[in-house]
Amino acid sequence: MKKLIAEFIGTFWLVLGGCGSAVLAAAYPELGIGFTGVALAFGLTVVTMAYAIGHISGCHLNPAVSIGLVLGGRLNKKDLLPYIIAQILGGIAGAGILYIIVSGKPGIEIGGFAANGYGEHSPGGYNMVSAFITEVVMTFMFLMIILGATHSKAPKGMAGLAIGLGLTLIHLISIPVTNTSVNPARSTSQALFAEGSWAIPQLWLFWLAPILGAIIAGVVYKYLSPEQNN
Amino acid sequence: MKKLIAEFIGTFWLVLGGCGSAVLAAAYPELGIGFTGVALAFGLTVVTMAYAIGHISGCHLNPAVSIGLVLGGRLNKKDLLPYIIAQILGGIAGAGILYIIVSGKPGIEIGGFAANGYGEHSPGGYNMVSAFITEVVMTFMFLMIILGATHSKAPKGMAGLAIGLGLTLIHLISIPVTNTSVNPARSTSQALFAEGSWAIPQLWLFWLAPILGAIIAGVVYKYLSPEQNN
Amino acid sequence: MKKLIAEFIGTFWLVLGGCGSAVLAAAYPELGIGFTGVALAFGLTVVTMAYAIGHISGCHLNPAVSIGLVLGGRLNKKDLLPYIIAQILGGIAGAGILYIIVSGKPGIEIGGFAANGYGEHSPGGYNMVSAFITEVVMTFMFLMIILGATHSKAPKGMAGLAIGLGLTLIHLISIPVTNTSVNPARSTSQALFAEGSWAIPQLWLFWLAPILGAIIAGVVYKYLSPEQNN
Amino acid sequence: MKKLIAEFIGTFWLVLGGCGSAVLAAAYPELGIGFTGVALAFGLTVVTMAYAIGHISGCHLNPAVSIGLVLGGRLNKKDLLPYIIAQILGGIAGAGILYIIVSGKPGIEIGGFAANGYGEHSPGGYNMVSAFITEVVMTFMFLMIILGATHSKAPKGMAGLAIGLGLTLIHLISIPVTNTSVNPARSTSQALFAEGSWAIPQLWLFWLAPILGAIIAGVVYKYLSPEQNN
Repeated sequence: MKKLIAEFIGTFWLVLGGCGSAVLAAAYPELGIGFTGVALAFGLTVVTMAYAIGHISGCHLNPAVSIGLVLGGRLNKKDLLPYIIAQILGGIAGAGILYIIVSGKPGIEIGGFAANGYGEHSPGGYNMVSAFITEVVMTFMFLMIILGATHSKAPKGMAGLAIGLGLTLIHLISIPVTNTSVNPARSTSQALFAEGSWAIPQLWLFWLAPILGAIIAGVVYKYLSPEQNN
Repeated sequence: MKKLIAEFIGTFWLVLGGCGSAVLAAAYPELGIGFTGVALAFGLTVVTMAYAIGHISGCHLNPAVSIGLVLGGRLNKKDLLPYIIAQILGGIAGAGILYIIVSGKPGIEIGGFAANGYGEHSPGGYNMVSAFITEVVMTFMFLMIILGATHSKAPKGMAGLAIGLGLTLIHLISIPVTNTSVNPARSTSQALFAEGSWAIPQLWLFWLAPILGAIIAGVVYKYLSPEQNN
Repeated sequence: MKKLIAEFIGTFWLVLGGCGSAVLAAAYPELGIGFTGVALAFGLTVVTMAYAIGHISGCHLNPAVSIGLVLGGRLNKKDLLPYIIAQILGGIAGAGILYIIVSGKPGIEIGGFAANGYGEHSPGGYNMVSAFITEVVMTFMFLMIILGATHSKAPKGMAGLAIGLGLTLIHLISIPVTNTSVNPARSTSQALFAEGSWAIPQLWLFWLAPILGAIIAGVVYKYLSPEQNN
Repeated sequence: MKKLIAEFIGTFWLVLGGCGSAVLAAAYPELGIGFTGVALAFGLTVVTMAYAIGHISGCHLNPAVSIGLVLGGRLNKKDLLPYIIAQILGGIAGAGILYIIVSGKPGIEIGGFAANGYGEHSPGGYNMVSAFITEVVMTFMFLMIILGATHSKAPKGMAGLAIGLGLTLIHLISIPVTNTSVNPARSTSQALFAEGSWAIPQLWLFWLAPILGAIIAGVVYKYLSPEQNN
């Protein structure tokens, strides 16, 4: 139960911090943080939670990550569903708090919130194929980083930093394409609050592509992986 | 006494570095550092002090942090008041040096300095409720990071980095809402120098909300926390 | 074979992440990541791969690095050619995926992709001599960082961070001069996809200068290097 | 002798990287790195060299740092003068290479290079008193970070990161005031190449103020410092 609360809080923070920085601060006139700041914020939610709750739940904060870790032999299959549910609920809670905060600005329009999208809802207008490939490849590499950096032969204590900064890197590359998901819980949380009726119909891609990428990584890494130290 | 001097110097640095970067460099024409640079500066004051004085005083630099650490069982209750006094005095000293430096620019107007505010004094015009929720939640998560990353089961030596970058993250999210406090000593130091008569009357929120967030974190973390290693 | 796959994936990531952030996100209107974001992205490809695959292949991702490490006595000479081939192929794969993603944006022009160049193809118009000196010196320092930070007397576990952030630094300095190579595999991958007929004829410089810089570093560091710990 | 070569190379890199990023990339149209990028570059020269040559020479790269470390009991007095000479020569070499690279851009004007200044030569127009106080306080805090983070009770291996990011922080605060020195070797190297006749006459401040700050830190830290571990 403590593990599930930790995953709930961590995913709450990932959504509030990452999507929150995008909604509140990215486009602030002149002084705004832009995509670089948003990329940094998403990454730092993972860095901070990795050190804060990594020793409690493993700090997945992402259904695709949990699935990849089951395939990579790092998470017990029976923990998968509860983890995913806790992540989705945590993400929704983060989006809800963000919605309340944003609503306290007179005259604000919620618009697309920080929802993910493709085609005309891609920030840069990229089509569905580009969006799908991007999400598969980015999540594949994210899981490769996670599986490699948490291997017993990797330097101790640095995994949280490498993984979090990996998420920053993924955002530096792909915000213009899909607004960057690689995380179905993050996408779901935003689609529920976005205005207009487009975000939920596009949500399938942000479940399917990240999970596909994570599965491929689980298989590839199992082949590449050296023996664990004892 | 050495602990109190360390807290004084550290909070001096947090205010001079964080608020100083905001006042001196954020809005510099074309080359200015914007909110991203200010967020980085606040975080790096904590990163640098964590490694420089963490082994002397624990490097709290913040009354809300000290209160949360008492509740989390990490600080002796009798040290609380002296720590808070040292932090407030250090913050005021940092603000004073900053005031002197700024005054050396011909024609400068101090304006709001880097004071925190809500309503019409929120950078983005967010109302009091949004500001209050933001400060409670941000400080809650800040203390969760601090309590988790300094736990004996977390990777050794990385806490200072995780906590400092956590403060960067908090600023990336919330500068538009309240100019980001999560630290009553920081808010007090700026309110004393800000022009106009609004900053001191709004100061209650930047004491109450951070302390409330810290108290909640102390209680929640105590439940979540695994046994300490010996 | 696992080492070569790791080098392939790592160089794939370096090109997709570094060049991808440049092509997709650098010049996005108003919110784009600029040279700072691109510099961060290149560095983070190395940080993430260093912790993910460093314990498999050493994470060179760069023919000049592999050559410098042979001279510095850190890589077996017989591994050099297979490593370089894997790096080139990985880079081309990364550029290919990037090309496909970019092509999904209606009306896009590929232009120079993220190719390196000098003279009229230098971003800032720097001539061939400046470009050559820049690439020699930057690669020289990159190898000094790599050889020093991976020495047995350097702090354990921090090399990946220092080396990756070193690549960030190199980009912060030299993107305006050559678009920054220091890596013949990266340059080759982009020249193959760039429009116009200029990038391949300029490719010689981005093989010759980095390799020359790496060779000098291998020799200098051998003199400077303290005895390895056992 | 190896120590002096290491200090030469390190200070060469600090000037080429820090001042180079300022001269080449800070004001590049639209995509330029601004003060944030320059601050990051200066800090990363120290981070990279700390891990690359820290175990050879201690990686001071700065006469004020060497003086502060003598006072703090960390450097042998007889090494001080050779270290300072190596740092000055390395800085001049870095400035020379930068000058050559910059000269390869047709129509370029060197202007003030990246020289430090006060009054009308302060980037933001700050007067001499503000400049002096800023340089004293910034160098004081820089030495407090260095002395604290390298103490035997501070976490092992993190000092290079904390100190380098400390230099980033110092630049985020004070570039608008003095263009940030805290390092007489850096200031001297630029004053020699700057156009106009103002930089050398102002150089006294960028020797006197940093050294004064370093001396105060050496004394204060000696009082604050806990016993070293054996």
